[in-house]
Amino acid sequence: MNKIGTTVVLIGAEALSRRHPGEHPDNFGAGAMALPETAEGAAAVISWCADAGVPVVPQGGRTGLVGGSVSKPGEIILSSERLTQIELIDPVARIAVVQSGVTLQRLQEAAAPYGLAPGIDLAARGSATIGGMVSTNAGGILAFRNGVMRHQVLGIEAVLPDGRIFSDLTRVVKASAGPDMKQLLVGAEGAYGFVTRVVVKLETLSTARATALLAVPNAVAALTVVGHLQGVAAVTLEGAELMWRQYFLDSARVHDFDMQWLEGEIESILLVEISGESVERATAELERALEAVWEEAGLTGGIVAQSLDQARKFWSLREESEFIYRLHPNAPSFDVSIPPGAVDGYVATLRQRLASVGSGLDAYVYGHIADGNLHLSVIGDGADAAGNRAAVEDAVYTGITDLGGSFSAEHGVGTEKRDAYHLHGNPERRAVAQAIKAALDPKMIFNPGKVPF
Amino acid sequence: MNKIGTTVVLIGAEALSRRHPGEHPDNFGAGAMALPETAEGAAAVISWCADAGVPVVPQGGRTGLVGGSVSKPGEIILSSERLTQIELIDPVARIAVVQSGVTLQRLQEAAAPYGLAPGIDLAARGSATIGGMVSTNAGGILAFRNGVMRHQVLGIEAVLPDGRIFSDLTRVVKASAGPDMKQLLVGAEGAYGFVTRVVVKLETLSTARATALLAVPNAVAALTVVGHLQGVAAVTLEGAELMWRQYFLDSARVHDFDMQWLEGEIESILLVEISGESVERATAELERALEAVWEEAGLTGGIVAQSLDQARKFWSLREESEFIYRLHPNAPSFDVSIPPGAVDGYVATLRQRLASVGSGLDAYVYGHIADGNLHLSVIGDGADAAGNRAAVEDAVYTGITDLGGSFSAEHGVGTEKRDAYHLHGNPERRAVAQAIKAALDPKMIFNPGKVPF
Repeated sequence: MNKIGTTVVLIGAEALSRRHPGEHPDNFGAGAMALPETAEGAAAVISWCADAGVPVVPQGGRTGLVGGSVSKPGEIILSSERLTQIELIDPVARIAVVQSGVTLQRLQEAAAPYGLAPGIDLAARGSATIGGMVSTNAGGILAFRNGVMRHQVLGIEAVLPDGRIFSDLTRVVKASAGPDMKQLLVGAEGAYGFVTRVVVKLETLSTARATALLAVPNAVAALTVVGHLQGVAAVTLEGAELMWRQYFLDSARVHDFDMQWLEGEIESILLVEISGESVERATAELERALEAVWEEAGLTGGIVAQSLDQARKFWSLREESEFIYRLHPNAPSFDVSIPPGAVDGYVATLRQRLASVGSGLDAYVYGHIADGNLHLSVIGDGADAAGNRAAVEDAVYTGITDLGGSFSAEHGVGTEKRDAYHLHGNPERRAVAQAIKAALDPKMIFNPGKVPF
Repeated sequence: MNKIGTTVVLIGAEALSRRHPGEHPDNFGAGAMALPETAEGAAAVISWCADAGVPVVPQGGRTGLVGGSVSKPGEIILSSERLTQIELIDPVARIAVVQSGVTLQRLQEAAAPYGLAPGIDLAARGSATIGGMVSTNAGGILAFRNGVMRHQVLGIEAVLPDGRIFSDLTRVVKASAGPDMKQLLVGAEGAYGFVTRVVVKLETLSTARATALLAVPNAVAALTVVGHLQGVAAVTLEGAELMWRQYFLDSARVHDFDMQWLEGEIESILLVEISGESVERATAELERALEAVWEEAGLTGGIVAQSLDQARKFWSLREESEFIYRLHPNAPSFDVSIPPGAVDGYVATLRQRLASVGSGLDAYVYGHIADGNLHLSVIGDGADAAGNRAAVEDAVYTGITDLGGSFSAEHGVGTEKRDAYHLHGNPERRAVAQAIKAALDPKMIFNPGKVPF
């Protein structure tokens, strides 16, 4: 362990071997990691790397699912692990100022005593860092209402690829002061800089909740329920997660979930959660709303959580999706956005296309139905066969752009979606991203091999 | 009147002389205007201008307050006036697809029958266009809750300065697919392209409202009321506008507003509006909330609107601010963002600084208190004296960046804030904006003389 001045720790392959590499086994490929404790420390490392021509791979919580943080020998990992200060929670301005290595959950816990929350939530809350969420423009459960990470970020401090510190720690939502550099850092996956500090907009935390699981015939029916709940003024919709049949059945089995409340066959299960002025009021409003839409939405069953424990169990069916990889270790997985009204058509076409790639192929489908973000895992004989890869990707991606969707919704591009980025991404968007890369990082030392190339 | 093909109308100085130039007398300085009816028509004009080296000045509703649309002989105005199609309102996906010349009010009226609204609202709704709102990253009344225009824009089609059509008509909120070109067009004030089509995210329209005027001792007290209302789960805060003493008194006088409900001296008046499941419920909740915070916030008077007409009258005091320029024709005006908790200190310091510029100088202060966006008009003997200009700007702008605020909140930079952009803007932000300008518009034909230069 070495220190550059007093603000950066350096560790090598042996120390790394005792740590968890996160979601991708190659994250620690570089075998060397710098852990700055300040923006100046990060700037010192980056300046040295820029001078020496050593590539830099930014890492946050390493919860990324698309290989955006993989590294290889000859590169240096730049980790936000020691940038863990929550510097300010301002309940009047409704903002937080945090260093980039703070996890979402820590920020949630720090804001909660003020009755506030970051306005964005996702299953990896315990490990995902605010800096990583900025760099991937994270989405999650609340994006249908509050938008994605871009919409919660008011200010950013980052070290640019030449070692300069870019500091725009704006604390206000209105700052129409010329083209906005910091927007480039959001969703750039480390191509343009290393985020060190973030000003996050906070929203009202609503703790009085009511949660239900509902058997719905299709996505349009789920959206009917969603639309109705969004129109009930006394409550706020806090989540709407749809699980298609096979995903739900396997998840319920793995999680030992009692399904006696379900009668007959199901097509899909909608998890909805609302908040209100009290648990009792929220529950009463939820029951009243479900009664009102029951026939219109063609609901065939439903259960409202009778306790917080039961609500947590409902959520675990949706959020603890790792079982997929225990049952199907190499299932190719995707994360797409489809305009909500087009979801049923897309899923039906997807299944047909997969079946024509290989007769046993099908997909787990689940996701955030209110914003049309679907997670897909292709399963069945030959799902992970190298020879099927291109055909499976075609089956998943074809037509998405024409629908107004996105080949990547909330996970980013990383290394795993590079082909899709070039085949299905917007060509002008790519060209401008490259021009900016050339302007900000002419030596191409930041996160090489990922976007925008 | 000439046509390029069938999709562009050209008009000259005489026809322009019969039109209203909008908020700035020099908007029609070019004396020639092209009015495309399609993106292809706009591309034809721009390609011709790029070849001929003729500068292009984009114009929407010409409601901009900072001279971002002024033009001069030798330039061509490119107007969105004929791009007026509302192409789609999709109540399931909760999006609208509109051409850029559609006014905010027309979109509001088109979405209302579906129970939806654009999620952004501002006083100039009748003339401000969606394209102009994208180009200035407009803010308005609801930004404290929904964010600014950037946060409501899902997709953009624009013609770039070389005549290429950039089309990213994404209809979903989650599209983490590499660095996001279209964010550059938001708030660029026409530097990078001419917006022709926009996908707008829609929000639930709440029509059952309750509105009050409250006498509050200061901004912190107003924010206490705001914070309390944001914590009432059964209602949604729809507006929080603060008018400091002199602004309110003069506005009330000009608008012939009965002030008998006010006793004694006032410091400032807060307008709040909430929505709920019914007018009765909203009104009851508002009255209950005001009773609960009355002492804590130090309220000294209040009146709850008893009719929609009365509520409209309340709003007119805040929104019909043109009286300022009738009473003080050349009052220098500003539009700044201050983190809400720092507003009282900022306003007190501002008044001291103005008094030291000239003993008779003071300012009207009013604005969107929940997001800290203040509108300022400097009045009094010598307020508009050329010799005082720099000192007045110093008085207004000094310290704002250190507070985490912005020298321009929602009006943009235009021509009038160029000095402030260079003195108080972020230098890295400016440098990157220039690099992007050089990459996208090497001939510098788009909206010359405005940002990023």
